[in-house]
Amino acid sequence: MTMNVSGYATKSAKDNLAPFRFDRRDPRDNDVVIEILYCGVCHSDLHQARNDWGGSIYPMVPGHEIIGRVISVGPKVKRFKKGDNVGVGCMVDSCQHCDSCKEGLEQYCEEFPTFTYNAVDRHDKMPMYGGYSDKIVVSDKFVVKIPKNLDLKGAAPLLCAGITTWSPLRHWKVGKNSKVAVIGLGGLGHMALKLAKALGADVTLFTRSRSKEKDARRLGANCVVLSTDEKQMKAVKSKFDLIIDTVPSAHDINPYLPTLSLSGTLVLVGYLGDLDPLLNTVSLIMGRKSVAGSVIGGIAETQEMLDFCGKHGITPDVEVIKIQDINKAYERLLKSDVKYRFVIDMASLKG
Amino acid sequence: MTMNVSGYATKSAKDNLAPFRFDRRDPRDNDVVIEILYCGVCHSDLHQARNDWGGSIYPMVPGHEIIGRVISVGPKVKRFKKGDNVGVGCMVDSCQHCDSCKEGLEQYCEEFPTFTYNAVDRHDKMPMYGGYSDKIVVSDKFVVKIPKNLDLKGAAPLLCAGITTWSPLRHWKVGKNSKVAVIGLGGLGHMALKLAKALGADVTLFTRSRSKEKDARRLGANCVVLSTDEKQMKAVKSKFDLIIDTVPSAHDINPYLPTLSLSGTLVLVGYLGDLDPLLNTVSLIMGRKSVAGSVIGGIAETQEMLDFCGKHGITPDVEVIKIQDINKAYERLLKSDVKYRFVIDMASLKG
Repeated sequence: MTMNVSGYATKSAKDNLAPFRFDRRDPRDNDVVIEILYCGVCHSDLHQARNDWGGSIYPMVPGHEIIGRVISVGPKVKRFKKGDNVGVGCMVDSCQHCDSCKEGLEQYCEEFPTFTYNAVDRHDKMPMYGGYSDKIVVSDKFVVKIPKNLDLKGAAPLLCAGITTWSPLRHWKVGKNSKVAVIGLGGLGHMALKLAKALGADVTLFTRSRSKEKDARRLGANCVVLSTDEKQMKAVKSKFDLIIDTVPSAHDINPYLPTLSLSGTLVLVGYLGDLDPLLNTVSLIMGRKSVAGSVIGGIAETQEMLDFCGKHGITPDVEVIKIQDINKAYERLLKSDVKYRFVIDMASLKG
Repeated sequence: MTMNVSGYATKSAKDNLAPFRFDRRDPRDNDVVIEILYCGVCHSDLHQARNDWGGSIYPMVPGHEIIGRVISVGPKVKRFKKGDNVGVGCMVDSCQHCDSCKEGLEQYCEEFPTFTYNAVDRHDKMPMYGGYSDKIVVSDKFVVKIPKNLDLKGAAPLLCAGITTWSPLRHWKVGKNSKVAVIGLGGLGHMALKLAKALGADVTLFTRSRSKEKDARRLGANCVVLSTDEKQMKAVKSKFDLIIDTVPSAHDINPYLPTLSLSGTLVLVGYLGDLDPLLNTVSLIMGRKSVAGSVIGGIAETQEMLDFCGKHGITPDVEVIKIQDINKAYERLLKSDVKYRFVIDMASLKG
């Protein structure tokens, strides 16, 4: 038995997204059935829809920044009940028995997590479809609670952009005495500023564009450094304990390394591929510095981040769109023409 | 007033080392005057003698793995007295007031440490000459004590090869439950094996040469992995908390990254330059891994390492040579024909 669902899908790397009906599994005993209210639009939706990383599975319903309301729960589900506001992020399952899963770091599951879309279910091998749809069925372990005071449409991007920047901030122990820099002011970058600021850090934005300064300061930056200006770069030499690099394409990280303090870390969260040009080791060795990577975050961390955002009243800056405008939104995303995240109002799916 | 000293120097990048007389400063109030008994031969001696890194200052007396006996001390020196067995490593001074120096990490002095040779004194601007000589004058803060039970000639390489591998082992908290790998079995690599083993870690050597296996096991390796063998590399997937990469030339680190465990670190200690070929970020991001660098170690750490070696009876494997054979030793060093460190018996200087 399955459940028929309405959404938007692309049928190939070249197609636009268009209305699509498909089946989701009949709920298992530990599943939560969710009516989707909002879904954020992540840059990786676009990458996967267009097969930029290879291996895309079609038809594809993207979307992994999902906010919804519980319609029903399986008999073994204790943590959720009908009517709860909940979220689903990039993962909907994992092996649940490896060391990473046991540590609550399902994103690093040794048997690979099951992603929310562009994947197949690890039990019944059904294709997984994402959040650009009206309903989703998810194992309760991968559902998180949305604090009551958070605006629901604003909360959607927390499920990917939020946790992707939160996880490294916590892993590298950012707090009141930390000096943090963020490279790039997009969906991830603007969340990194907000979260680092709320954690009490002194926060700097590195940008190539003077026009971002005003917004960066509003979002929490104490300081904005034009990365193309050698003088400004020298002025922040040896300053930062942690640099969160959110740039989603190949770029030169060498100029940022001298701005790390002794034993500091530059963590890449947005770019999968070769570090081009060549990374020079002199800056690393002459200051015990690290270049690291990090991907999204675990489910417990995601709940922690949502609770933190609830407590501090933090939500992303979003532009709400109708599902019918998703192809236009993708074009604007390619030009970085969004402040700072599109969120689809899923009510539009009925209209 | 100065002190006339005998040693071996090279007068240019093209010359061989040859006998050389020069002046050292008259001891200051906090100086220790040391009769040099042994001096290790570091690969970086060769690099600097031949100006491989640029900026070499000639005439150059190399040598920064110095073991000697105190001849006299300045009036303000309390920690040393005539007759003490002491060591001097890569540094002989630093600013003493920056954060790094205050933390005891003089190697990362924000105003740059004064190196033992190929440098000028930060106070009187006299050229600094290294340990291929019969006497040296060093500020007491940069002199360390040699535990009584350590063989003096064997102890010399601890001052560079020892501390260079000890510092990252300690910084990344290697202990009884750690899994450590070492890339390369030379002067640094063989010390990394001995020290990691003595710290209680499970230790693996990565090598390209099957012939190293027997020695590696004798030196402390629990396991030897042929890095050119894909099957062997797959068998250690996700295994290591820390990889100490001692290779002194450009090499591909990408194949080693999948062998790091979740949140593991590969630390470069031997190579200054571009990481060629390009570093791919996928392994870093899909496991929160880091590529880091580290250089030598602080003075307090050096004393800690010497005391640890005293306690555990650890000294490098050395081949003792006469100073007259230094040019031949350099040629053999270029062919990695040494197990595992040349040490000059400075008594030969008189012969």
